[in-house]
Amino acid sequence: MDKIANTPKPPYYAVIFTSFRTEGDNGYAETANRILEIARQQPGFLGYEGARQGIGISVSYWQSLEAIQAWKQHPEHKKVQEKEALWYGESRIRVCKVEREY
Amino acid sequence: MDKIANTPKPPYYAVIFTSFRTEGDNGYAETANRILEIARQQPGFLGYEGARQGIGISVSYWQSLEAIQAWKQHPEHKKVQEKEALWYGESRIRVCKVEREY
Repeated sequence: MDKIANTPKPPYYAVIFTSFRTEGDNGYAETANRILEIARQQPGFLGYEGARQGIGISVSYWQSLEAIQAWKQHPEHKKVQEKEALWYGESRIRVCKVEREY
Repeated sequence: MDKIANTPKPPYYAVIFTSFRTEGDNGYAETANRILEIARQQPGFLGYEGARQGIGISVSYWQSLEAIQAWKQHPEHKKVQEKEALWYGESRIRVCKVEREY
């Protein structure tokens, strides 16, 4: 089972990715697992939490905006981003600064 | 089915509540629905997204830190907060400023 991300004392950053899936797998599950493993190896990656119940909410935590930007530009991640129209009917990404935690 | 929250142009705020439930309902489902309805009526409330899949992730969106603080102090909400030890084995709350959205 997933765990609550063990993030450091704020400030740090969060990327909230909210989505609805399209019908069918279309290679999604395998790719999602693989890309998360690659994300975990990136500089500045702090943690991940995700759940889907109709709506899917994935939150990744990062040390800095620069780390988020670098991951967005990562070649493997860019390949995946090109498939988003196939996998997601609707989605939204919010980049946030975590200011307090309790 | 829930929808992706129709939030305004940033900046605004997000409260990410991540949790694991304890065994049994203990009045949780009814209270969770009721408290969300009350939250929706608060000044500065912008939207809500939630999913549970083992881990539960609930994100509420707010206009300001003051709106978040006022909701935290709301009498109905405080009554609910007292029951959190009964409902949640582990939980974490992160207060964030949403800086970008796409």
